[in-house]
Amino acid sequence: MIDRLCVIGVGLIGGSIAKAAREGGLCREILGVDADGDNLAKALELGVIDSAFDAAQPGGLASAAESADWVVIATPVGLLSPVLVALRPVWSALAVYTDVGSTKQSVIEAVVNVFGAVQANFVPGHPIAGAERSGVEAADGGLYRNKRVILTPLPETDEAVLRRVETFWASLGAKVSLMTAAHHDEVFAATSHLPHVLAYALVHMLGRKDQQQEIFQYAGAGFRDFTRIASSNPQMWKDICLLNRGQILPLIADLRHELDGLAALLGAESADEDLLAYFTEARDARERFLAQFPDESR
Amino acid sequence: MIDRLCVIGVGLIGGSIAKAAREGGLCREILGVDADGDNLAKALELGVIDSAFDAAQPGGLASAAESADWVVIATPVGLLSPVLVALRPVWSALAVYTDVGSTKQSVIEAVVNVFGAVQANFVPGHPIAGAERSGVEAADGGLYRNKRVILTPLPETDEAVLRRVETFWASLGAKVSLMTAAHHDEVFAATSHLPHVLAYALVHMLGRKDQQQEIFQYAGAGFRDFTRIASSNPQMWKDICLLNRGQILPLIADLRHELDGLAALLGAESADEDLLAYFTEARDARERFLAQFPDESR
Repeated sequence: MIDRLCVIGVGLIGGSIAKAAREGGLCREILGVDADGDNLAKALELGVIDSAFDAAQPGGLASAAESADWVVIATPVGLLSPVLVALRPVWSALAVYTDVGSTKQSVIEAVVNVFGAVQANFVPGHPIAGAERSGVEAADGGLYRNKRVILTPLPETDEAVLRRVETFWASLGAKVSLMTAAHHDEVFAATSHLPHVLAYALVHMLGRKDQQQEIFQYAGAGFRDFTRIASSNPQMWKDICLLNRGQILPLIADLRHELDGLAALLGAESADEDLLAYFTEARDARERFLAQFPDESR
Repeated sequence: MIDRLCVIGVGLIGGSIAKAAREGGLCREILGVDADGDNLAKALELGVIDSAFDAAQPGGLASAAESADWVVIATPVGLLSPVLVALRPVWSALAVYTDVGSTKQSVIEAVVNVFGAVQANFVPGHPIAGAERSGVEAADGGLYRNKRVILTPLPETDEAVLRRVETFWASLGAKVSLMTAAHHDEVFAATSHLPHVLAYALVHMLGRKDQQQEIFQYAGAGFRDFTRIASSNPQMWKDICLLNRGQILPLIADLRHELDGLAALLGAESADEDLLAYFTEARDARERFLAQFPDESR
């Protein structure tokens, strides 16, 4: 059992961790830290946290973290470095530290930059449960049920701390996987970061066209689904893309190559069979992906 | 009031037209034509149609159409030419003909090829209500409510016939717009065909990666939404893409150019502000698109 859980960043992700931890009886007390005073007040009012610490005030973050035995950093990944700098003076070898950032090599680099070395009691983590909603009012104690959580421990990571973080997420209903940070960043560059980049690029391009020709009024539900991730927070995704650009840029190049090939197929004299085979392979690949989902909407 | 409505292709689109027309009291009798015997039997059994004509039998299609005063061609757009060839011997100047194809210049070309000239009583149409579901069992009398239907009449189109087709769709609850076939094909290449091509290309590329590295198991709901259209019927989309490739190929080139620009931004030394501005512009463009939708899920 956790005595004092400190959640830094009480938005959708952090707020949902707090709610789920409380509902599961995993902790005695929850300390919430946020730089957005309105969101912080709301978190307190909703009972998501027991006490509120304003990260915008000097020492606000540190005074919450120093009395906690479990610290979850749930800020956007772009804020990880300043959070670590604020944590450093009160960092305790007896506490457990973990995060929820969407890129993992950058998080480990930030730890090394701030502390001079990997910290054995910090377990880098990434719950796969994003959404376009944000803020504590969107928090949901069931958010992590049947969702994947990736942990990317290092050789230096304390084995007992790692087990505790695994158990914590499992108690929230998540399916925990371990992999290296490099593999994590490679996988998510492909299945998450590249699709976001692509959705932003398509909507950016068509947005210009729309201003000339009003094409959006004729777009339907397929377009709405396809572009939903282009409504994601631009600040957060700017950070993710920059922090993982080493993985994303080669994938953009791969995709351009893929589009060249498809354009060549489409333009060919007798394109029929090849194009059908191409679309069928893609459809079948998506069916393989869908097979992982239980019965929910596809 | 239509006396005998003949629906050629009693799938999701045609079946929904039949159900909606009956529920709205727009016709006395519905003749269904389909080349899939099981689907045809099901349509009869469900009462979606009053009599069934097997398009796979010689003369099946013609014998349904010749007694009808209103003929809706609701086959995949790739089958339009053979359907027109079968209709030609029984074509009546007193009947109304319309279609639902996703490309419109190709449909008009097919009419000219088969008949030697545009037909004044044929109104090219396109309801924007696709879905990945198919078959008459998915048919829904409310499918066209608040959906857009585009009609692309020609100078030769009979004005009274056009008004009747407009009224027909409006009676099914649709919002009818008129535009040229060329403009239709340009708009839908951008908002529908290009996204499909892109989704197929992305999933095709990642499918290969998945076979090496099992990346799909870590993909989440964002990826599922983004790739939903890659589960669309490959045969139907192969036809659409080939029939409208003149519009789609330049857009693929534009998108490659867009991706080059975005990759350059992402790789730049001081990318921060420019990338944030880019993503923000894209997000704002999507908000403009969403503003057209009432209150439903975004």
